[in-house]
Amino acid sequence: MILQAIIDIAEICARKGVQDVVLSPGSRCAPLTLAFARHPKLRVRTVPDERSAAFIGLGIAQKTKKPVVLVCTSGTAAYNYAPAVAEAFYQNIPLLVLTADRPPEWIDQLDGQTIRQSRIYGGHVKRSIDFPVETNHSDAQWYGVRLLNEALNEAVAFPEGPVHVNIPLREPFYPEPEEEFAYSKNVKIIEELPSGYGLPEQTWAALKKELQQYRRVVVVAGQGARDEALQAAIATFCRNTGAVYITDTISNQQTAGESINYHDVFLGAKHLHSQEQLQPDLLITFHKSLISKSLKLFLRKQKGMHHWHLQPAGMVADTFQSLTRIIRTSPLDFFGKVAARENLLQVAPDFTQAWHDLDRQGKLVLTQFQKNSPYSEFNACYLVLRSLPNNSLLHLANSMSVRYANLIGVAEREGVEVFANRGTSGIDGSTSTAVGSALSTDQIVTFLTGDMAFLYDRNALWHNYLPQNLRIVVLNNHGGGIFRMIEGPRSQPELRTYFETEQRQTAQKTAEDMGLTYTKVTDAASLAQALPSFFDLAAGPQLLEVETDSAENYAVFAAYREQVAQRIKL
Amino acid sequence: MILQAIIDIAEICARKGVQDVVLSPGSRCAPLTLAFARHPKLRVRTVPDERSAAFIGLGIAQKTKKPVVLVCTSGTAAYNYAPAVAEAFYQNIPLLVLTADRPPEWIDQLDGQTIRQSRIYGGHVKRSIDFPVETNHSDAQWYGVRLLNEALNEAVAFPEGPVHVNIPLREPFYPEPEEEFAYSKNVKIIEELPSGYGLPEQTWAALKKELQQYRRVVVVAGQGARDEALQAAIATFCRNTGAVYITDTISNQQTAGESINYHDVFLGAKHLHSQEQLQPDLLITFHKSLISKSLKLFLRKQKGMHHWHLQPAGMVADTFQSLTRIIRTSPLDFFGKVAARENLLQVAPDFTQAWHDLDRQGKLVLTQFQKNSPYSEFNACYLVLRSLPNNSLLHLANSMSVRYANLIGVAEREGVEVFANRGTSGIDGSTSTAVGSALSTDQIVTFLTGDMAFLYDRNALWHNYLPQNLRIVVLNNHGGGIFRMIEGPRSQPELRTYFETEQRQTAQKTAEDMGLTYTKVTDAASLAQALPSFFDLAAGPQLLEVETDSAENYAVFAAYREQVAQRIKL
Repeated sequence: MILQAIIDIAEICARKGVQDVVLSPGSRCAPLTLAFARHPKLRVRTVPDERSAAFIGLGIAQKTKKPVVLVCTSGTAAYNYAPAVAEAFYQNIPLLVLTADRPPEWIDQLDGQTIRQSRIYGGHVKRSIDFPVETNHSDAQWYGVRLLNEALNEAVAFPEGPVHVNIPLREPFYPEPEEEFAYSKNVKIIEELPSGYGLPEQTWAALKKELQQYRRVVVVAGQGARDEALQAAIATFCRNTGAVYITDTISNQQTAGESINYHDVFLGAKHLHSQEQLQPDLLITFHKSLISKSLKLFLRKQKGMHHWHLQPAGMVADTFQSLTRIIRTSPLDFFGKVAARENLLQVAPDFTQAWHDLDRQGKLVLTQFQKNSPYSEFNACYLVLRSLPNNSLLHLANSMSVRYANLIGVAEREGVEVFANRGTSGIDGSTSTAVGSALSTDQIVTFLTGDMAFLYDRNALWHNYLPQNLRIVVLNNHGGGIFRMIEGPRSQPELRTYFETEQRQTAQKTAEDMGLTYTKVTDAASLAQALPSFFDLAAGPQLLEVETDSAENYAVFAAYREQVAQRIKL
Repeated sequence: MILQAIIDIAEICARKGVQDVVLSPGSRCAPLTLAFARHPKLRVRTVPDERSAAFIGLGIAQKTKKPVVLVCTSGTAAYNYAPAVAEAFYQNIPLLVLTADRPPEWIDQLDGQTIRQSRIYGGHVKRSIDFPVETNHSDAQWYGVRLLNEALNEAVAFPEGPVHVNIPLREPFYPEPEEEFAYSKNVKIIEELPSGYGLPEQTWAALKKELQQYRRVVVVAGQGARDEALQAAIATFCRNTGAVYITDTISNQQTAGESINYHDVFLGAKHLHSQEQLQPDLLITFHKSLISKSLKLFLRKQKGMHHWHLQPAGMVADTFQSLTRIIRTSPLDFFGKVAARENLLQVAPDFTQAWHDLDRQGKLVLTQFQKNSPYSEFNACYLVLRSLPNNSLLHLANSMSVRYANLIGVAEREGVEVFANRGTSGIDGSTSTAVGSALSTDQIVTFLTGDMAFLYDRNALWHNYLPQNLRIVVLNNHGGGIFRMIEGPRSQPELRTYFETEQRQTAQKTAEDMGLTYTKVTDAASLAQALPSFFDLAAGPQLLEVETDSAENYAVFAAYREQVAQRIKL
């Protein structure tokens, strides 16, 4: 007889808002597999490579904003989840990670698929739970149910994140032929009503008063989900005060004409970093990480400024080494409150104007440069990003793809939402995350990646759920082209072998194996010609390979940097 | 300037016996990459997928019996090593795992590729070391050198295993154009001379006296390296005493005619397990795990017996729930000592005879069955294993491949050494391990695998070091066929989707991408025809795909079990 407590785990998940489950095949996890696969209210998929499975789960959770359950068998299967668990931890994505295990008496006894699984994800989960081995006693039953409730409550409590439940299982793993298999009707649910957060009135009053003293205010949005109410509140705040609003592409807060979107271009002109006209006296940030290294460097140089970070709860990073105040409320609450009053603060007009003028220059340099530059990754990215369907999703692989996209931006396209694994910035699960996203929407999902990231995670596509709306653009320069862009490795004799790691594969055979329609382009004209049908919604899953030469890509990028250095002026 | 302490890590490794280094590309690890890549005495390879890189390193260390150094960048790269680290831990393979990290002040600050790396492998390393951040003070320099010495000493101390050194690195990562890059000439080396182990004389006397009381002695060899001196010592012991010597295929101790090699066949007849004639009063074991589930079940049922395990040091598993004595010396020392005297103990002749008679029956049933059975995985494995070149290496993937091979055995081939990742029994690195092995020998390395294990770890072949002596046999039944072999999952409606995880790929496109010559067979005759040229040493890397039908494989295996149950008799 398989245990009711195990069957009911699926029921608790369904009742607490889980919609999607990603399983990987295994024997030890069979009772969990059956419990989830048979549940009428859960969408269950099975993906053999656990590394990809976990990132697919992460992609689903990121898009659906619901916790996703992962189930794997015992042994190193659990370790293959670890990269995605770490990414979920730093990106605050709710995952419930269920790992089947042998009971404790069989650990270290040389039986198959047995490792030390308890607390295996170390500091990269919000909580590690050991599910009880014996659930015959009624207290043990209450304990198991309570732990699952706690795990799900913890996963979705702000800031969200992964929770691990290690579940020791004894045989039998399968029900007997006549055995009843049913979910308990009255399984206990512990609901958690989240706090709305917010500051006391006197704190608001003090903040508003203090705000009036600043004359050079910059607001920077880190990586986060699209939030139109927030966008409107910040726009009002900036209009009323003259504050400068800088948005990285992955912030999903950029607006053509209102926010500063080309900072990654113009701050590439390093001589600007010490210009007094640009120096903020107050920096206000919210959400997670930034891509723009130029912006990071610029902000780290501004030693005198105050830096307020808005975040209702959880650990706060001091990314610019300047953090002076953590404000425990939501950005929407903050900007709504401070934008509601006129004359709250007045930013010096020349400060506002200097930033917006540079933004226009950045856009101009970028546009003109790409028009006159030869075929390379640079203008291929430009063309792809300017051809994205409106109201579609864009996933960006680490490492050059996300950098090109942050330079070029998507503000010119309407309603494009941007994702990238910038919690840990690995290349190990970018494709899988895009697949998870595509499985959770009918919109076109474009995934822009390099050959290294794509081939690394090719098992992202090895399962029976290839999404029809998936579009993959592989920038193939036959190696890790980013290393040629950096002065250090470029000048080492080890560049080609040990840094770029030259590899001769294309994505063609992988595309064929996985069932994607494959197109390869090697010049700008064929790329332009290929894009309209590539983005056709009816075309089915597509892979477009853009083959370029690494040395040429570097030459173009160097020419671009030169243009920026010469042409951007305050 | 890059740090001398980092450059010298490579020098310490070279002086302490390291020969092979496997790097994965990255930026943070660049000083380590340069230190290793430039070292004149080290063989350095670079493999992009860290999961595969680590298993390749493990395969090299397993074959060369020297510690292998792994070097990766910061972030989830380190987590991708974890499956191989766990395998090395349980299989006692020496690895020095060097993970580059950000300095501690930048952890959790939303910078790229930064996770909580310190002690990231939990209980699966012999030791976790945090390398000092600052090495300007002479004490800190001594500390860094000492830690590296300790790490390598620990990795090779019996029982060997992985050691992790997390190395925080600040920029610059690359030497300045005119900067001198040289290894320190007088780097301090701490040598460790290992104990020879061995028991005090009075313990030997007592053991020998006690041994005389046993009449039904079984010696079982677990997974271990080929050891001819040991084989000879045990053969002498068995000849002198009549003790029964059972060897799994992965023990590398099997000998045609002397050891019991077909126990996995005849103990499949479960009615034998309670037969008094077979019950040992003393079980003597050494080395690591067993494959044969029938043997494990048989031994776990023998509740009255004594069980001595021979192992000089380290944790000992109680695999059969019967362990009564741990003897802290080497198996060679033990059998050398106890075999040296005649009349030491006398095993009952009917006991010895019963086991050897069953062994002959097992061989007969197996041989006759495969002759008369239709084309399936079963006789394909038989044919492949009986065609292996003498003095070659055989790598076995988990999960069915290793089981078929253990049934069928390799005792009929001369000098075939067998490897399998039975530390954790994962499918995640079997191919990579075989690749690492093939890189460390000129002998033919045959890798027998299933489609799931092969496709899971296809990145094992994604690098520029494809070994010419590698031969891969993929048993493709388009899913995890093992689940159909087991009664539990076979009878569930979820079999095909959630257990076997049906997948339609062949290995063809992967073979083409990776540069292996590809041949596919779908019947016994073409398989027999393909094998001679497949094993031709001059043929270069080959992949032979043996496509079978999962339902047919099950039918054949069920018929085989039926034969065993009917024909094996005491």
